[in-house]
Amino acid sequence: MIKFKNSITKKIHSLSPAQLIVSFYFIAVLIAVSLLSLPVARYEGVDWSFINALFTAVSAVSVTGLTVLNTVETFTVPGIFILAFVLQFGGVGVMAVGTFIWLLLGRKIGLKERRLMMIDQNQSNLSGIVKLIKQILVLILSIELLGSIILGTYFLSYYDTWQEAYFHGFFASVSATTNGGFDITGQSLIPFANDYFVQFIVMILITAGAIGFPVLVEVKEFIVNKNGRFRFSLFTKITSITFACLITFGALAIIILESNAYFKGMNWHESLFYALFQSVTTRSGGLATMDVSEFGISTLLVMCGLMFIGASPSSVGGGIRTTTFALNILFLFHFARGHKNIKIFGREIHEEDIIKSLVVLLLAILICSSAVIVLSVTEEFALIQILFEVCSAFGTTGLSTGITPDLSSIGKFIIICLMFIGRVGLLTFLFILESKQKPPNYRYPVERVIIG
Amino acid sequence: MIKFKNSITKKIHSLSPAQLIVSFYFIAVLIAVSLLSLPVARYEGVDWSFINALFTAVSAVSVTGLTVLNTVETFTVPGIFILAFVLQFGGVGVMAVGTFIWLLLGRKIGLKERRLMMIDQNQSNLSGIVKLIKQILVLILSIELLGSIILGTYFLSYYDTWQEAYFHGFFASVSATTNGGFDITGQSLIPFANDYFVQFIVMILITAGAIGFPVLVEVKEFIVNKNGRFRFSLFTKITSITFACLITFGALAIIILESNAYFKGMNWHESLFYALFQSVTTRSGGLATMDVSEFGISTLLVMCGLMFIGASPSSVGGGIRTTTFALNILFLFHFARGHKNIKIFGREIHEEDIIKSLVVLLLAILICSSAVIVLSVTEEFALIQILFEVCSAFGTTGLSTGITPDLSSIGKFIIICLMFIGRVGLLTFLFILESKQKPPNYRYPVERVIIG
Ligand SMILES: [K+]
Ligand SMILES: [K+]
Repeated sequence: MIKFKNSITKKIHSLSPAQLIVSFYFIAVLIAVSLLSLPVARYEGVDWSFINALFTAVSAVSVTGLTVLNTVETFTVPGIFILAFVLQFGGVGVMAVGTFIWLLLGRKIGLKERRLMMIDQNQSNLSGIVKLIKQILVLILSIELLGSIILGTYFLSYYDTWQEAYFHGFFASVSATTNGGFDITGQSLIPFANDYFVQFIVMILITAGAIGFPVLVEVKEFIVNKNGRFRFSLFTKITSITFACLITFGALAIIILESNAYFKGMNWHESLFYALFQSVTTRSGGLATMDVSEFGISTLLVMCGLMFIGASPSSVGGGIRTTTFALNILFLFHFARGHKNIKIFGREIHEEDIIKSLVVLLLAILICSSAVIVLSVTEEFALIQILFEVCSAFGTTGLSTGITPDLSSIGKFIIICLMFIGRVGLLTFLFILESKQKPPNYRYPVERVIIG
Repeated sequence: MIKFKNSITKKIHSLSPAQLIVSFYFIAVLIAVSLLSLPVARYEGVDWSFINALFTAVSAVSVTGLTVLNTVETFTVPGIFILAFVLQFGGVGVMAVGTFIWLLLGRKIGLKERRLMMIDQNQSNLSGIVKLIKQILVLILSIELLGSIILGTYFLSYYDTWQEAYFHGFFASVSATTNGGFDITGQSLIPFANDYFVQFIVMILITAGAIGFPVLVEVKEFIVNKNGRFRFSLFTKITSITFACLITFGALAIIILESNAYFKGMNWHESLFYALFQSVTTRSGGLATMDVSEFGISTLLVMCGLMFIGASPSSVGGGIRTTTFALNILFLFHFARGHKNIKIFGREIHEEDIIKSLVVLLLAILICSSAVIVLSVTEEFALIQILFEVCSAFGTTGLSTGITPDLSSIGKFIIICLMFIGRVGLLTFLFILESKQKPPNYRYPVERVIIG
């Protein structure tokens, strides 16, 4: 047993961080397919073809929530518990491995003073990652438990039996916190479209999952250590502010763009809650209080942009990530005016991080545009529907204008790839691309080129 | 008189290069509106409203070729000569001022060895720019004259009188070389859809205008100076190769994507010429041998990308420019693998040029997406039609799925702005943004941020 464990340890140590995260993802999908394929998990007569099984598994592991099958009509109660487990596994797993890689990177570049001060410095080994996963699990499970209790208790007025109420409360809490986006109501959160309390709780749970594990740890630390000397990391500041800005911008944009359309004749608080919830859910939540296909093209385009950006790194979300977006915007505004570096919050952004964020954005645009072009060949839907589906998959958001079940097999496969890439994160793939040998050290004469 | 001239010289010297090019553009539009508004230029009963006049003038000065009015039904023969003059003025003017600014930039950064060796070094004054404009005019006019003679003579078989033949030859040559994209056939080059000779000549003329003035000068120099020691500049190499790659990629993509649609049952040479011509025209030409709205969404998306990239800098085209695109792609492939600089053709790309090209691309994406979102509010068209119109305007290409005349006034105004920005080039606007005072010299501690 010890020998076996040592051999696994050795194996894991021989993997590069990027290989580690991709392997984890593959194994997780394999486990998910196997578990969800158990006969006890599904009702009879469901079209459980290979592509549908794979799609559902990847959607669950990547906590996207796009579905080719109606969840509540496909899975039995045991099946739904398995699904909740897979969401947990996928959400927390990639989150942990991702954070672990970042810590590794920190060691590699010899950065002594990590601002994530509360995370044990010595984690670049198996016991380290186990510890990290434990830390994350405790945090997330506590949040989910609290969410389950609050929602379950509240649902007592909605459902006939307490078992049903708490079952729904449990699944809604897990689906929200892991940003899973799956629903067992059969119609997302539409039944609670006028229940501001449920929406409020769900928005908090989505945010807790999507804002990033380091932020949660730092906030916990801030609350516990009241000595006043606590300083939030630059990461936490940037990602939280970007997060807040994106939600505010999204809500305002939706209110303005739909004021004469979907929101016509609605109360101000109804409009506000619809807009706010749909804005929050684009971070990566995927639950919705309405059928988004009823929005106009302009609103859907704004939501595409928001989903493409996605959630924080080291979170349960996907997309290019908030910090990538923030660094690109900062780059644009600083370098357009001829500055040579980015200063913010009394800190300077590392040049390598700026370059990485630019590469991630360009690569993401390239991948998503290619996907849109291919899908517009293989599918018969309108461009906005295809674009929305692509951004939703890449951002692992899980919102859809309703075309997911009708995608062709090629279409489903492309969406599967996008969910995979979006969840693992492009930065991980950059690690794989990065050549091991150092680039040649000779220089050529510099020559200028006319650009604009 | 001398005093007046001196005062103008002084005025021009006090302007920054960016102000110079924007002023030139504004004055050119003013002149174009005035000339085209002359009663002799138009037939009676044409809807010559302010927004239509402005749209036509900007479209002509920016050599875009988008039209809200049918050219041949709007303008009389004198009007068409005026239009040809405006195209000339707009095409060569911005080209000259743009090149001039680049030369200025070269002086500013103290770069002694300009590879554009044949352009007089001492041009950062009024006599310099006049000389430069003369040089460009001679080159472009020679090409146009040659084109007019070839096309006019060839058209003798198409038209009843020699006057008509040469009139059409003259306008087609000017419209192609300046990449004006206007037509007096009433249906672009569709009447010549099966005439490969006309298409071949027009493609050469479009390329001559769009490949950039420095390339033309260097090629001329290469042909004249046969001493074997001539070396093409890095700019010429990058822009020519990018140009060729884009045209090849575009033609192949169109052939593949339309093989089972528009090209079904066509000869291989018919398909090839349709694909090749439509690919060349996206560089910035704007003339078409078919109604592009008959293409599928995927083909139109590819064309959107090609138009967004546009032509070479210092040419008659628009868009982000070929070199900006090339530098972004090189950046992606080099920096994704962890390199610290870009080496190509035995030269190293200047860091500032990489940064500028990244800024231009990001800014262009931001501007075009915003335009698409606003237009999808104000207009009733499909997303693909709006996107196509936006890319066409920004790339000053002038292709359209046919929605231009039906745009709302706000829609027309947005397209006007895009043609303006696309033609002048975003780099020019960066010069305006660049703060005059040096950025503060103090440094902050560097802190890393999690990205992807
Ligand atoms: K999701
Ligand atoms: K054009």
